[in-house]
Amino acid sequence: MFQKYAIIVAGGSGSRMQTSQPKQFLPMGGEPVLLHTIRRFFNYDPALVLVVVLPEQEMGTWQQLCAQHGFQVPHQVVAGGQTRFQSVRNGLAALAHAEEGVVAVHDGVRPFVDKAMLETAYETASRQGASVVAVELKDSIRRVRGGSSKAVDRTAYRLVQTPQCFRLPLLRRAYAQPEVAQFTDDASVVERFGHKVQLVQGSYRNIKLTTPEDLVLAEAFLVQEKGK
Amino acid sequence: MFQKYAIIVAGGSGSRMQTSQPKQFLPMGGEPVLLHTIRRFFNYDPALVLVVVLPEQEMGTWQQLCAQHGFQVPHQVVAGGQTRFQSVRNGLAALAHAEEGVVAVHDGVRPFVDKAMLETAYETASRQGASVVAVELKDSIRRVRGGSSKAVDRTAYRLVQTPQCFRLPLLRRAYAQPEVAQFTDDASVVERFGHKVQLVQGSYRNIKLTTPEDLVLAEAFLVQEKGK
Repeated sequence: MFQKYAIIVAGGSGSRMQTSQPKQFLPMGGEPVLLHTIRRFFNYDPALVLVVVLPEQEMGTWQQLCAQHGFQVPHQVVAGGQTRFQSVRNGLAALAHAEEGVVAVHDGVRPFVDKAMLETAYETASRQGASVVAVELKDSIRRVRGGSSKAVDRTAYRLVQTPQCFRLPLLRRAYAQPEVAQFTDDASVVERFGHKVQLVQGSYRNIKLTTPEDLVLAEAFLVQEKGK
Repeated sequence: MFQKYAIIVAGGSGSRMQTSQPKQFLPMGGEPVLLHTIRRFFNYDPALVLVVVLPEQEMGTWQQLCAQHGFQVPHQVVAGGQTRFQSVRNGLAALAHAEEGVVAVHDGVRPFVDKAMLETAYETASRQGASVVAVELKDSIRRVRGGSSKAVDRTAYRLVQTPQCFRLPLLRRAYAQPEVAQFTDDASVVERFGHKVQLVQGSYRNIKLTTPEDLVLAEAFLVQEKGK
């Protein structure tokens, strides 16, 4: 057994969502998206230590939302930075007291993460240091270069989701590196640090709420789940 | 002005959909998916010549479904082949009498294609020979090789959708090539023939019904459209 941690990053502004409200606070089945996401981690393992990273100016709103919805799941709230990298680093700083264990980094707007996926991701990282959930591409893919593009083999690619899980000391050392533009996710940070990342099977349900279409799908998933 | 054609390919078996019924016949808002797709092309341009490619053993079912739903949009039905390449080639053979114009190749299970997208795709192909609708990736992407994987720059890639539009003589000559495994879509066939393909902005609503999640989203989109 090992201690589990999660850093849930919710720094998005909602520009692609075409809403004024930050997308992590948008209602889904009547409750903010972020609340659903946190609850999934709690239901997977109530002993999990949860850190939620939010833009500083939204911490008050979140406190109000938690009170309004009677949300009791214990979690620490930390102010985010200018970039995702800085936000995760701030989340890690909140775990400075912890020495061992495995930490998941997860998008606050990915509320359909499930128990089986979490279990596999944490266990794989515990054994191999770093794991990332990913899915195969449904569509063909092209590589663009300059003004033109060419078909590439889609079976050679995976779409990356979260959670991305890491042994805590490894992620901490990786995040001590200077930030570079190539850091698109935590796996790329750890990889640049020289550690291989193990892929774990994700799910087409594990959507990241990015555009208005995603919110439509999310509501439909919720209705479907309640019907079961 | 130029004559427009469309080859709508509906050869899928539904294995990833976890249904016994071919996915192009699954009900969506009470009507088969394929019926919706064909209607979108008709509503865009009633003068469009429509060829629908179906597995030979499903042609009878389709005829019944059209009668049952009182579906009157004129279209020619052609038997598909063993592969998508062969199915499109059979569709092209049905247009052997036509000399000029622009043909769209479209997935039968992509029923949310819209007028603006069709217009841009046809017009671009008319001017430049070949166009493909595509969207940017929402998720990070990794390239797998052997047992390992590495992060690649997602902004250098596009997810390919349909319609893919071509000047008819160009597509016909491209499909006279021998089939190879690298042909994942029509654009790759035309590209191998030596012609550049122009990317056109697709849409996150233009989904291909592949897995059960997609059907949930499709139903939700329909409800949303009716509410407008």
